[in-house]
Amino acid sequence: MNEDNARFCLLAGLILLYLLCGAAIFSALEHPFELRARLLWKQQLDNFTRRYRVNLGALHTLLRQYEEANGAGIRVDTLRPRWDFSGAFYFVGTVVSTIGFGMTTPATIAGKIFLIFYGLIGCAATILFFNLFLERIITMLAYIMRWCHERRLRCGAVRVMSSREESSGEEDSLEGWKPSVYYVMLILGVASVVIACSASTLYSSMENWSYVDSLYFCFVAFSTIGFGDLVSSQREQYESQGAYRFGNCLFILMGVCCIYSLFNVISIIIKQTLNWILSKLVCSGRHKHLPAQWRSKCMKRNAVQPMPSQYPAERHHYTDGSIETVYDSETDAGTVAEVYVGRRLSGEMISVKEFMVSNKLSLALLQKQLSETAHQGPRQSYSHQNGFSGGVGALGIMNNRLQETSVDR
Amino acid sequence: MNEDNARFCLLAGLILLYLLCGAAIFSALEHPFELRARLLWKQQLDNFTRRYRVNLGALHTLLRQYEEANGAGIRVDTLRPRWDFSGAFYFVGTVVSTIGFGMTTPATIAGKIFLIFYGLIGCAATILFFNLFLERIITMLAYIMRWCHERRLRCGAVRVMSSREESSGEEDSLEGWKPSVYYVMLILGVASVVIACSASTLYSSMENWSYVDSLYFCFVAFSTIGFGDLVSSQREQYESQGAYRFGNCLFILMGVCCIYSLFNVISIIIKQTLNWILSKLVCSGRHKHLPAQWRSKCMKRNAVQPMPSQYPAERHHYTDGSIETVYDSETDAGTVAEVYVGRRLSGEMISVKEFMVSNKLSLALLQKQLSETAHQGPRQSYSHQNGFSGGVGALGIMNNRLQETSVDR
Repeated sequence: MNEDNARFCLLAGLILLYLLCGAAIFSALEHPFELRARLLWKQQLDNFTRRYRVNLGALHTLLRQYEEANGAGIRVDTLRPRWDFSGAFYFVGTVVSTIGFGMTTPATIAGKIFLIFYGLIGCAATILFFNLFLERIITMLAYIMRWCHERRLRCGAVRVMSSREESSGEEDSLEGWKPSVYYVMLILGVASVVIACSASTLYSSMENWSYVDSLYFCFVAFSTIGFGDLVSSQREQYESQGAYRFGNCLFILMGVCCIYSLFNVISIIIKQTLNWILSKLVCSGRHKHLPAQWRSKCMKRNAVQPMPSQYPAERHHYTDGSIETVYDSETDAGTVAEVYVGRRLSGEMISVKEFMVSNKLSLALLQKQLSETAHQGPRQSYSHQNGFSGGVGALGIMNNRLQETSVDR
Repeated sequence: MNEDNARFCLLAGLILLYLLCGAAIFSALEHPFELRARLLWKQQLDNFTRRYRVNLGALHTLLRQYEEANGAGIRVDTLRPRWDFSGAFYFVGTVVSTIGFGMTTPATIAGKIFLIFYGLIGCAATILFFNLFLERIITMLAYIMRWCHERRLRCGAVRVMSSREESSGEEDSLEGWKPSVYYVMLILGVASVVIACSASTLYSSMENWSYVDSLYFCFVAFSTIGFGDLVSSQREQYESQGAYRFGNCLFILMGVCCIYSLFNVISIIIKQTLNWILSKLVCSGRHKHLPAQWRSKCMKRNAVQPMPSQYPAERHHYTDGSIETVYDSETDAGTVAEVYVGRRLSGEMISVKEFMVSNKLSLALLQKQLSETAHQGPRQSYSHQNGFSGGVGALGIMNNRLQETSVDR
């Protein structure tokens, strides 16, 4: 079993464990309430039948009819029409975003069949939209954080060591600098909380929900779970209805984008945790018969100096450093290959690759060199090796694996 | 406005248009049914009040109470308990997968607050799970398709041109070969249809739904929309209940994974379509004041010979070809840079980079070369340039942009 499969299985196991724990906790929290609600409803039904001398069977028939009417969006207190244009727009919005509150559902066969094809394209387009949004927001955050980092660095340089070092060193230390995933998570988390709190203030005043209910609704809607027990903008009339409907859509759109980004950032951290657990499991020495790749990772992990790119204030020449680490061991072709495999995870080679790409002008020279050495080394299957350089998520996974994504038309 | 932003805005506009069209169609399909259902319910209510001489107000109170009881999962025909362990497990499953049928929802404040934190971690973990699944399935499909392609190639070589070319040419043409995204979409689509049809057969026999209803349920569940108008495994008793519940979970898990992968593959195709539309818009010459990058793309598009990697039977030496295209134009540093920018989209450079990475042993030499030329060329900001090599989706977007994802711990 290779590392990718091991991580996948570990994650599946942990999720199963998480589900079992969650089921136990929710069961403990909610079961008493369910029993009470059941008892209450029985009493209410008894009272009604006794008072009005209604046949219980007839009442049950009525209630079944009411359930069916419920499915068509009918309630005792009149709601907004389900299938006028604005209602249908709200509905398709919940479809393509996969929120699916279920306050409105197609009842005709034609509607159901159309939904399947409509949703197929719509959901795919929305996934792309969320991914492009994620790309935009990460680019923006990286830009802002880089700018802040640059300013802090420059201020520090002016104050403390204005005479000791040249300014060129400063530029170099920025070259490899990237924002930490934890900061990005923090920023997205704060943004999500701000959006959810603002939205909750709006909802609790417009819908007469408690603030906790509003927050709960916000989470359920923004995470695209969409239970449908609470749905905003369903009554027939609101004050300043147009503005509220627009604000509702805007909040849901912003919230969904933000929480989607947050989920993806958290999932990176979870992936790191999985990798850490796996490396602990492997390095604890319990497994004697490991693939060479893993063993070398354990052995090399301490030998390889991790790049201090997190501490750019040290003015370490990022690119030079990473090149030299590999360059030093370039005594034997076999050694190089092993070191390369061993360091696949530690990222030095990836950073070298990045640097090569970033240095456009030297590429032409490199290609010349490359075309000379192209047929000398043994060729390796590309698919396995590409596991990390291709990205860790959704479409990035498919990057460089499919014709069209590597050409990226 | 750069290309990434233009694509994002174009997509947002197209989705809005798609929503408007969808709203119009659904409104036309479903509105008549809504009116009929409303009329029917009014008649049923009238009949009941007239026959049993029940005060309409009292009946409305009862129906409101019934709505509340509905929220706690109570129906006339007894359903399975909501919050016993198995019910709670089903519930948390719909939470972390973001299906959110809403057949069970937390009613207590503690449950609602716990849900927010539980869902935050759970949904992120599940997104990671789906992404890792996507990675596994794409790797597997690429492996299988490569194997088929290899066999076909070998058979063809033996039959037709056994004497004309050396077998080394065959290996080379495989080097750059990757499965087409359309084939992958086809395979995933067929797999989804097979899973949905098998599941529908099960559901229509166990739940007494019509086959179309079952298919509709499958799509709604697998795409994680989860309206909740139809929910499987809700009755109190089934024949062979344990097996059915397990099968239900398994079908939903497989379906969700499959449709998630399908959505992501479709979203790649949508992205290509967007790029195509953008290039058409740009190249039609309507915009005179373009960024140099776009203009060069238009001009170069016809000049650059697209790589025939889609037709590997032609035995084109993929890697050599792409190297030489760039190598020929290596007369001037400025020209090389411009060509590089111009071809960013057409993928030649990306394939060169891939090839460089795939050739482990020549890397050491390249790095030596690189360290010599490292400080000669002007440094470019990395973030912009990385738009394509970093991947086109979810976490892949963040790849190489954050500290932790580029080191990929």
